[in-house]
Amino acid sequence: MRFTSEQHLSGDVIERRFTLGDIPGILWMPAAATAAAPVPLILMGHPGGLNGMYPRLEARARSAADQGFAAVTIELPGGGERPPLAAAEQARADLHRALAAGEPVDEVVDRLVLPLVEAAVPEWQRTLDAVLSLPEVGGPVGLSGGVIGIGIRLAAVEPRIAAAGLFAGSYVPRSMFEEARRITIPLHVLLQWDDEGNDRQLALDLFDAFGSAEKTLQANMGGHRGVPAHAGEDAARFFARHLRPSSTPE
Amino acid sequence: MRFTSEQHLSGDVIERRFTLGDIPGILWMPAAATAAAPVPLILMGHPGGLNGMYPRLEARARSAADQGFAAVTIELPGGGERPPLAAAEQARADLHRALAAGEPVDEVVDRLVLPLVEAAVPEWQRTLDAVLSLPEVGGPVGLSGGVIGIGIRLAAVEPRIAAAGLFAGSYVPRSMFEEARRITIPLHVLLQWDDEGNDRQLALDLFDAFGSAEKTLQANMGGHRGVPAHAGEDAARFFARHLRPSSTPE
Repeated sequence: MRFTSEQHLSGDVIERRFTLGDIPGILWMPAAATAAAPVPLILMGHPGGLNGMYPRLEARARSAADQGFAAVTIELPGGGERPPLAAAEQARADLHRALAAGEPVDEVVDRLVLPLVEAAVPEWQRTLDAVLSLPEVGGPVGLSGGVIGIGIRLAAVEPRIAAAGLFAGSYVPRSMFEEARRITIPLHVLLQWDDEGNDRQLALDLFDAFGSAEKTLQANMGGHRGVPAHAGEDAARFFARHLRPSSTPE
Repeated sequence: MRFTSEQHLSGDVIERRFTLGDIPGILWMPAAATAAAPVPLILMGHPGGLNGMYPRLEARARSAADQGFAAVTIELPGGGERPPLAAAEQARADLHRALAAGEPVDEVVDRLVLPLVEAAVPEWQRTLDAVLSLPEVGGPVGLSGGVIGIGIRLAAVEPRIAAAGLFAGSYVPRSMFEEARRITIPLHVLLQWDDEGNDRQLALDLFDAFGSAEKTLQANMGGHRGVPAHAGEDAARFFARHLRPSSTPE
């Protein structure tokens, strides 16, 4: 992990850009985090394209920092400036075509999501190794948003993740439901009820499949980008409950 | 409305029992409410049996009072000390039998819920008239929980209700979906995902039917009585947003 820039943002948040091998990433930290008082960490997912996503990621990182949490994100395989994944581009085009034609999408979703999951999860795990080795970052670790297939795999294989807030806003291969059943950490799942590029019934089936004893589904009106502010606040309180276990729930 | 007792509870909450005709009820008010500073009101529903429900109703009323809201509840037709509704008792037994036998329940649900809705809604409206005539109570008015069929009818016909938190924990006649479509106020719908005496798909279809542009479904794990504390807190914040419109959302 090589830091390439450091900026002190307003609100006492330190933003540090880094590269991990050839993967660009951003780490945000409350200025108050020290080796003597290390902070919990949130892995912040997104749909790819760090530059375009930056304003929303920065807002989420500020909200995390307000709660005393560090937050980290990395570029997706094939996203932003990274070399494109030709097969994924093709699968994305095929998915749009199949959806427009009302055809079954299972095979296309497998082709689109599974290789992305395979490539992304080890990168997130290396990021976790690197960030947890910083003296100012302790844990526990939460996982927030992004491509939900990546979140499911990460939550299923990575025991350092203590709680996950997932956005049921993209397709999940049916073959991943078995992994969803193995997840037992507390989950907070957001669903946009009228998400134009998503399958509501698939999302409900997925929520049902998760093995967690504590799981909440919060569905709000509107399309993919229409998550209301109060839903973000409820998700923040979910992390406050689970990453600051000694505190009184807000 | 005839007040029969008044008690000053800890936490500066005034509890006043009353009768409205032959219907018993309870009104809770923050001690700070005055004619010069009248407070919003929450109509608090329940499944019937005021005495048995009292501890939970009192806790909900205290939470409302903490936010500066009055709260009122009345006994259901056929509930508690009120004369039993023989047809409803029969329908309830028939519902349990049909569910145990895996038989269709639509006709039984109609017999159980529709007469209760017809009887209860005018009583809640008279209660609303009476409480809103008190100088310490202003508005807006929220509706919280109880038999969801009653909540749907009330929200559909009563323009003084500005926001509703509904508990999708009991059967709703399919014939009431048309009323659900006419509701346009903000809604916060709680669903217990594994509610043993409820139909999950019916609840999801009902949520879909509501006409409100702002509606949230929050589903949590567990049975009918297992609503987690954080779900209660999220519902409280829903009312804070909509009954205290000038305040910053919490």
